[in-house]
Formats: sequence, C-alpha cells, structure tokens
Amino acid sequence: MLTTEQISLNKIKIDDVFWTKYRSLLKSTIIPYQYDAINDRIPDAEPSYAVQNFRIAAGEVEGRHQGAIFQDSDVAKWLEAVGYLLSFERDEEIERKADDLIDLVARAQQPDGYLNTYYIIEEPENRWTNLYDCHELYCAGHFMEAAVAYFDATGKRKLLDVICRFADNINEVFGPEEGKLKGYPGHPEIELALVKLYRATGNQKYLNLSKYFVDQRGQKQNYFTEEWEKRGKTLDKSSVFKEPNLHYGQSYAPVREQEVATGHAVRAVYLYTAMADLARLTNDDELKKACQRLWDNITEKQMYITGGIGSTEIGEAFTFDYDLPNDTMYAETCASIGLIFFAKRMLALDLHSKYADIIEKALFNIVIESMALDGKHYFYVNPLEVWPEASQKDPRRKHVKETRQAWFGVSCCPPNVARLLGSLGDYIYSSTENCLFTHLYIGSQINAKFDGTEVTFKQSSQLPWRGEARIEFEMENSVNIKMAFRIPDWISGRFSITVNGKETDYTTKNGYAFVERTWENGDIIKLFMPISIQFMQANSMVQADAGKVTVQRGPLIYCLEEEDNGQNLSSLLVDTEAAWIEKEENFPVLGKIITLEADGYKEIDENNQLYSIFKKNREKINIKAIPYFVWGNRGIGEMRIWLRYH
Amino acid sequence: MLTTEQISLNKIKIDDVFWTKYRSLLKSTIIPYQYDAINDRIPDAEPSYAVQNFRIAAGEVEGRHQGAIFQDSDVAKWLEAVGYLLSFERDEEIERKADDLIDLVARAQQPDGYLNTYYIIEEPENRWTNLYDCHELYCAGHFMEAAVAYFDATGKRKLLDVICRFADNINEVFGPEEGKLKGYPGHPEIELALVKLYRATGNQKYLNLSKYFVDQRGQKQNYFTEEWEKRGKTLDKSSVFKEPNLHYGQSYAPVREQEVATGHAVRAVYLYTAMADLARLTNDDELKKACQRLWDNITEKQMYITGGIGSTEIGEAFTFDYDLPNDTMYAETCASIGLIFFAKRMLALDLHSKYADIIEKALFNIVIESMALDGKHYFYVNPLEVWPEASQKDPRRKHVKETRQAWFGVSCCPPNVARLLGSLGDYIYSSTENCLFTHLYIGSQINAKFDGTEVTFKQSSQLPWRGEARIEFEMENSVNIKMAFRIPDWISGRFSITVNGKETDYTTKNGYAFVERTWENGDIIKLFMPISIQFMQANSMVQADAGKVTVQRGPLIYCLEEEDNGQNLSSLLVDTEAAWIEKEENFPVLGKIITLEADGYKEIDENNQLYSIFKKNREKINIKAIPYFVWGNRGIGEMRIWLRYH
Repeated sequence: MLTTEQISLNKIKIDDVFWTKYRSLLKSTIIPYQYDAINDRIPDAEPSYAVQNFRIAAGEVEGRHQGAIFQDSDVAKWLEAVGYLLSFERDEEIERKADDLIDLVARAQQPDGYLNTYYIIEEPENRWTNLYDCHELYCAGHFMEAAVAYFDATGKRKLLDVICRFADNINEVFGPEEGKLKGYPGHPEIELALVKLYRATGNQKYLNLSKYFVDQRGQKQNYFTEEWEKRGKTLDKSSVFKEPNLHYGQSYAPVREQEVATGHAVRAVYLYTAMADLARLTNDDELKKACQRLWDNITEKQMYITGGIGSTEIGEAFTFDYDLPNDTMYAETCASIGLIFFAKRMLALDLHSKYADIIEKALFNIVIESMALDGKHYFYVNPLEVWPEASQKDPRRKHVKETRQAWFGVSCCPPNVARLLGSLGDYIYSSTENCLFTHLYIGSQINAKFDGTEVTFKQSSQLPWRGEARIEFEMENSVNIKMAFRIPDWISGRFSITVNGKETDYTTKNGYAFVERTWENGDIIKLFMPISIQFMQANSMVQADAGKVTVQRGPLIYCLEEEDNGQNLSSLLVDTEAAWIEKEENFPVLGKIITLEADGYKEIDENNQLYSIFKKNREKINIKAIPYFVWGNRGIGEMRIWLRYH
Repeated sequence: MLTTEQISLNKIKIDDVFWTKYRSLLKSTIIPYQYDAINDRIPDAEPSYAVQNFRIAAGEVEGRHQGAIFQDSDVAKWLEAVGYLLSFERDEEIERKADDLIDLVARAQQPDGYLNTYYIIEEPENRWTNLYDCHELYCAGHFMEAAVAYFDATGKRKLLDVICRFADNINEVFGPEEGKLKGYPGHPEIELALVKLYRATGNQKYLNLSKYFVDQRGQKQNYFTEEWEKRGKTLDKSSVFKEPNLHYGQSYAPVREQEVATGHAVRAVYLYTAMADLARLTNDDELKKACQRLWDNITEKQMYITGGIGSTEIGEAFTFDYDLPNDTMYAETCASIGLIFFAKRMLALDLHSKYADIIEKALFNIVIESMALDGKHYFYVNPLEVWPEASQKDPRRKHVKETRQAWFGVSCCPPNVARLLGSLGDYIYSSTENCLFTHLYIGSQINAKFDGTEVTFKQSSQLPWRGEARIEFEMENSVNIKMAFRIPDWISGRFSITVNGKETDYTTKNGYAFVERTWENGDIIKLFMPISIQFMQANSMVQADAGKVTVQRGPLIYCLEEEDNGQNLSSLLVDTEAAWIEKEENFPVLGKIITLEADGYKEIDENNQLYSIFKKNREKINIKAIPYFVWGNRGIGEMRIWLRYH
C-alpha cells in the first residue's frame, strides 16, 4: 500500500473556512513570534537562550550554555515549521531568517560532524556519556526532521548536508559492531527522524540505525543502568528521578514485549511512531502487533476524551489503565501531537478509521486548544478542569496553569504546534494504487496520478460546525478509482454520500465508506455526516468521571467556563434530558462559533456549614457551554469538561 | 474557671464497654510492641534506631546517628505513653523498662544539660544552628511531656530533673536578653510542653519561655531566613523545600496576625495548642481571638468529615479553604491528635460543645481508625478513598498506603496514638467551682470535691452504638452542683435527661445541657441522645465532594469496602431515600459492631469503550457500609467514604 508519504506535501493546498485562519496565523504571528522567542526577544517571558547557545558554540560570542540541555531542539523545530510553511507559502523574510539560522547551525558543527551546543560549550569531553538524561540524540533527531522539511520545501541542501554529516557521525558511534556504543536515546525522537532522513536521502544505513535504536531499547543488561554506574551513579541535575527509571523512558523491556503504554508520554508516542514506521518499512509483523497493542491500550484505557495523554505530572507520564484524573493530569500538548504522529503511521500500517478519529480529536481539542487565539500564548498542560485558586495554592496543581503562557523555560510545545499546523496537509489523505482515502474533512486541493491520469481533488468542508463536505474532480480524462471516506466516530445518524446530487450506495470496511466508479471531470461528491449534541460518558472504570457527562458536538468537546456560568462549576448539574439551544457567537480570529445553552441546576447551600445533613436543594439555572478549544480566551476563571448531571 | 487540668488524671478510671478494649490493647500490645519498635526488634519493619542513638550518645556503643533527625522524640513519646498507662494500671515489667530507658537518657545528657542524640553524635559544634529543620527544641518538648507524665504517674523525679536541667539550658540559650538567640522551633511542640513543665514544677520561667517562643514566631526579620543565610543558604538533607518556607512552619507572620490555618498541619495545631494555653494562663484576649479564628478556619473550611486535617502531602500541609481532595489528602494521624490537643485547650479557654464534638469525631474516626485491630499496624495518612492500584502505581498517591504498616522510618504517629489512648481520661470531664462538665460519653469514674464534699461520679455509656449514657452519684453528703452535658452535634432528635427515671428540664448554653439541683448519694442521671443514620453532605464549595454523600451514624462515619461491595466503588450509588438495615456483626477485638445495608445501584457498562454516548444503565444491588474506623482490617481493597447517590 502506498501511504501519505507518497502524496507530496507541497502538492496539497489547504483552503478551509476553519483551518485557513490557523494557517494564516502561522505565517503572520506564530512563526515570527517563535523566532523572537528563541532569540530571547519576548518581554516578560522566560528567555530561551536557544539561538544564543549556537552563537557561543560557533565561537562567535563568549558565554555559558543556558536553558534546558535540549534547548537546541527548539531551533530545529522552528526551522522544521518554517520548512512546512514555505512548502505552501513563500515568505522571503522568514526564509532569509531561516537561512541565516541554518548558517549559524552549520558554523557550530564540529569538524567530525558532531552538533550539540550543550556538550560543545560545557562538556566536550563527555559526549554520549549520559544518553538517559542528556538528549543529544533527541536534538539530533529534531534537526533531521527540520533538514528534511526544509529541503522538501526549498530544495536547499545546506541543513540536510550538515545533518547527514552528524547522522554519519552518530552511525560511527552507535551500532552493533565491535567497539561501538550499544546505547539508544533517553528520549526517543531520532528513530522516527532517521526514517525521514532515509526517505529523503535513500540511504539505507539511516533506516538500519533507526531499527538498531528501537530494537536495542530495553535489552539486558540495561544500557541506562550500566551507563549510570559507569558515571559513578550520577544523573544530570535536571533528572526527574533519583536513579534511572526504566519505565520513564520505555526501556524496562524490549519494545516488542511491552504490553501497556508507560512512562513519559511524549517519549512513548515518539517511540511508537518509529516502531510503526519500521513495522511497515521492514514488514515486521511482531513489531506491528506491539504497535496495535500499545495503540489500543492508550486509546481504550489511558486517553482523555480530548485526546490528551499523560495522567500525571510526575515524569509527565502514563500511570495505569483507567486512571484519568481531570484536575492533576498532564495531557501535554507535545504528547497529543506525538499521538497524532503515531496515528498517522498506524493509518499507513493498519488502515482503520479509528486512527484518523484520534487525529481529528486531538487536532480540534488539544492542538488548537493549546494555543491562545492570538497565536502568542500556549498551554503545556491541557487540563480538563481548572480551579484557579488550586493552581495557585495547591502544589499538586501548580503545573496546571490557569492561563496560557507567553513562553516556557522548557518550551517544547509551542514549536510543536507550529510544525503540526504547518504540516497539516500531510494528515488529510493517503492513497493506494487505485484508491484515494480521505481521513480528515479539511478544505484542500490535491493532485494525484491514477492510471496515468493526473487528477485534482478539491475538497471543501464545513467542519467542525456542520457535518458536510464536498469533493470535486478536475481532470482531462475519466478515471476509474475508489474513493474512500472516513466515517467519523462522532456521527449521529446515517453517513450518506451523493454523487452529482444523487444519493449513492457505498461499501464499508475498517470504518471507511468506499465508492468505486468511473469519475468524470466536474463530478461532485457530497458527504453528509449528521452532527448532534451528545452527552458522553466514560467507562465506569474511570473513577474520576464517575457520575459525570460531557457534551460533544461533532468532533468538538464542550466545556463550561466561570465567565458564562459563575463560580463553583462543581455545584452545577446539567439536565441530560433538556434540549440544548445552539447559538452562533462571534469569537476573535475564528469568527462565528457555536455555543450551547440549556436548562440546568445549581446546588444551593442553606448555611455556611462545612458538613450538614443531606438535603437536595437545587435551583434551575441556565447553563452555557463553549467549545473546549476556545476556553481561557476571555480571562482567568474556572473551567470544567466533565459535568455532574441531574 | 477551673479546667480539666485541675481534675487529676490518676483519679479518673475508664471502664467502658468500647474503650476498655483499646486501653487493654495499650497495655497488652501497643506499648510492648512500640518498645520493640524503638529497639529495632520488629521483623520486616523499618528500623527505628531511636534507642540505639541514645546508647551511642551515652558513649556506650560506637556508631553513627541513624534514622530521622528527630528520632529521639519516639523514645520520649513512648515514655510519655507509659506514664499515662502507669497512672491507671501498674505494670512492673513496663515500668522497669521505662526506668532503664530513663537511665539511658540521663547518661546521654551532656554536662551542661543539653540532650539531643543527633547533635551529640554528629555535630556537637553545630547545636542550635538550624532551628528550621533540625528539631532540637521539638525533641526537648517531647521529653518535657514525657517527664511530666511519668512524674505524675509514678512520683519518680529522675526524668523530670534531667529535663528541667535541659530546659534551664535552653532558657540560657534563648530569650529576649542580650546575647541570647532570638529563635524559636521549626516544629512547634516545646511551647505546649513548657506549659506542662510550668504546671508540674510551678516554675514561672518555663511559662515565660513558652510565651517567648510563641510571640517571637514570625517577627521580622524572619529568624529562619536569617539563620539560613548565616549557614550559607544550606538546609538539612531532610528539608522539604529548597529554601525556608515560612508558611510551612507558620512563621510568615506573628501568630496574632494569622488569619487561616496554614503549612504543616501538625506544626500548626501544636502551635495553636500552646497559643490557647497561653491565652488562658496569661488572660491574653488578642491571642484568644487568634485561636478562635484559626479553630473556626480549620473546622469550618479545612477539615475532613473524619476530623482529618492536611489536604496535601507536599509539606504535609493545609492548602486553602474548601480544598479537601479525598484521594491525595494527607490527614495525618498526628495532625488529628494535635487537633484534639488544641480542642481540649479551647474547651478550657472558650467553653463550647463544638470543641468536644471535634474531639469525639477525631477519636472515633481518626485515632482508633489509624491503628489496626491488632494494635501493631498503623496508618500515617488516613485516606477517605483508597484505590490500591493507584497507591501502588500513581506517584501522587504513593503516600496513601492501602494497608496499615508495621512501623515507619518516621514513626511519629504510632506513639502519638499510644499517648492519646493512655491519656484518654483527660478529655472526658472538666469542672468549674460548682459544675461538672461531661464532654465525652465514655464509661468512667471520677472523684471531685465540690463545696467540701468528695463526690464520685460513675459514668457508663453505650456509645458509639447506642446514644445512651448514665451517671451515678456516690458521696456521703448531698451536694448542690450543676451538671453540664455536651449535646452532640450528631444528635437526631431531642436530647433528653432523666433523673432517677423521671424526665427533667434543662437549660442550654454553648451546646451544653445544664441541670442544677441538690444531688443525693445514689442519684442516677440518664441521657438519651437519639442516633439515626444520616446522609451527610459537604458545603457546595468543596469540589471534591460535589454530588456525594456520606453515611453517619452517631459519631461514626461509615464507608464502603471492596470486601463487601466488589470492585470499583465509584460505580456504586446509594439511594438517599432507601432505608438502611442495621446489622450486628462480630469483629475481632471489638466484638459486636453495627454495619448497615441498603438497596443501592451499580452502573453497568454496555461495552468496553472508554467513552460512549451517555445512557443511564444501573442495576439494583445491595450496598453494605461499615464504620470507617474498622476499614482495612480484612485485607487490601478499595474503600471510600464519599458516595455517589441516586
């Protein structure tokens, strides 16, 4: 089967009522803002030092390395996002800045190809001695992704060449051969990046190195433990635990033996992404089964209804099945973006709509939610429940920020949002020899060749507000292909398809609706996906959601805010039998959005006692829900997704 | 007004159907077991090193100090508990062990009176340089309490003399005079202990020193911050925070200005206890107001329905008003015992039944709950909700042990339980010139002199199972006094009193019922306190309890256990309109207890989906509740106090 990777990204143009606003923001604000951030030019934000570190490493200014040990990755992710942007819209100023930055990166590279500002500046003699903590391979991976994206978009080879030299250097240091280190990264990332480098260069050794890193992980004796002992049992000062925690970085067992998603959520999904790539590229059925098992464990037992993952701040990690606290969770933006990466690879490996359902869920409810509508403020942690006083006063909830931040000392999330928005086109379609799969309903235009005929597909979509999409064909000759459309998991009613205005039958398989015929120029397919307002519940094993419902409308999860409903949202109850009224409301940037109102109840205290004899004492009130992805854009206040019901 | 302290403890004999079992356990098991514990003789338990440290400090064996820096206090608390035991029941073997231990303590004392094994062994040159972390004054306080209790019970002065020499040494080091240190303890305790030492010796300087420590706390410049700077900004390795946290030890402001209970809960209530003592003994109205304010803040905004306090493990601390999570709380045993200390002083300072209500609540629902029925296993943290898998796998809940432990590295709680059970008689009554107050309904006998006549009061009580108590008079002459009886806050119906079988009128004030008459030998008062099963709710500001009720029967809070109700207690709902059936059931040690059964509901999942469209799907089941204080005595499983309702 061909995969999305065979549909060249720069052949996809996004033109969507909803998403174009975010893509415009990418160019006008997000990328320029993040450039300022990595150059320490955002007032009142924690400085990044990321670019400064490269200047020092290049010997152009004096100074110490500052910021996180993996700060280089923010430069890489910014360059990667620029690559994606330039693939659909040229911008001379941004391209010049990127070229200059690439020149700086090249000047910082060491004669043998090595490239990591922390070690170059601070501990040149200690390269590769602390893979557990020190992120050298992680940063290398991000530069590989950046190099491939920038090369794909611009055809410029400079960063790609720099990074291939580094990859070659890494390949000389690590591997099964006598005398090489038998290690692998503490934070997976290079594994999936090496697959991209393999695709861009055709050089098999990069694929082999990726496979080596993946298969070496968790083998006995454990590399991280041995490495730690060799270092005299010291860890980096940034280390989360007191000794190497083998679950944290998924190295407690070989990956093929891992049964449940565990440890640091971002590390986990980056690792699984590479595993799925390798399972497909090397036809490795055992690895595929591990991917399926881990996917199912995440999405059926350890995922928030928003698509958030990571139930605890401690280690930013998965905990255990059905443990999904709404107030102390982590649900890091990067983790959901990693889940989208994993989902995309699973779609290529094991085509099923369940993977695309999660892409859509995480896109709407985490990726864009994590960013303020101004494009300049971000959540790292995406809570399902916020009580501002608790965020300020309870140390257990200090990580749950009640408002989006201008930047972070560790600022992995904002550039991850940028690169995902930039590469959004990569998630919409995939194809086989005679079938075009539409995974996401996002207005866009794509060209693909079927049976020698170049076909242009023009999609328009009314999601997330209305469940309608439309595909028009443009081509010179007629063509006989299958068109496959994802049937969304949120659909309420019958998925129906018309061709040129006439309802048509379809077959279904793996959650997709298939229509096969000879298509003519100008043919129009319309898809009807009934959206209704649904109360959703969690499995009864999820103790945190017991006795609660949430409101879903199409792909969007809704929430209540203090702004609309007053203080103490925990005293409110929705009426699961009341009808919701949809209202169109203007929001900045987005224009019209749909908010919901219905009758509900509020509990009233008869006195100030802390505890008293139970008495049901409720008054009728009006409850207003807004899409979760826009919460927190109107000031600080309580918010909650899971609601008590009457 | 006279206070409980004027009723000599060794004149009170407890003979109660319920409590005598615990008091017998104290002698047969608890005190011998804890002696073995501090002597490191409990297999499979963390060693204490507490006695060993004294041997090293006395120069009798070689070695380093081990265990917590305040390990000495466990020796002191054991001796104090022995003192209480010997006040009502002699035991030659235990007394001999205590005398030997006191001899050892005396041999460890330094020529100038100083006594602290950590500093004697490890850092003799650094005495009094880290009051914030290092607990020298805290340990001194515990030895003062032990010395007074042991002297009161046995008349033996040895420990009292040792400790007075230490107190004199401390008085030379600390105080307002030129050249003395202006510090005060990081962990309050010595303040309340100096009041006891003052009472036992009549020496005013001990009272003055207590007052000095209390008033000095939180004055600017902050002593802990200055001391830390003098040390080169170092803290002890055991320190919880990275720099002195002034809320943690209630030193952020002078105590008279403190508005809400804050910081480490045990420190807070030990401090408030001394404040209440001093407010009474020095007629300090400002201090009294601070005590009332802090009491009300705790009990009206920051206390669990069990009488537990401390909402977070981080700093074992209060957080903020209405923040009462049931699954990650701390609710340390010592903190509720400290709350009982505080309540007793408030009763003496500001007589009102609300203080005794909390003593009773914490006694039944924390103090005895914290100990297994075998007397050999203890909770440090007293959870309102236990999910064993979470305790094992979620680092946020690691401190919430799902089963009582044999001992702890820091084992402050078990000896605190022992000394409280030993001194239980001290909490039952207090008197004024012409009135005997009965605060607790616990079968007991007490002698007191009124108007020259020695009167013996014989109380019997059927609590906690039945709301009846009986007081009989024994005396030579008739006597005209007031009898005051606490009207419990859990009463459901009319509190009624008969004298010699005939119902009598009473007046009420501050929650007490008063009956005044001329009493004759053999007069019998009976008290009727209707008990019913009540569903209780929390104030709607308590987000953690929203939509939940708990079951209370008299002074007892009830809970559900997995043992009786199967897994996943969060899927169960009680029916607030269903009738509970009371059942008598045999429990080890306790004999018959009352359990409750009623119809309820269980939510059923229609499939294994993590999230699905809401559908009320409940089956009727039988729900069984047991008194919270016996939970966890039948193996490991889920438990919860706050229950969803139908």
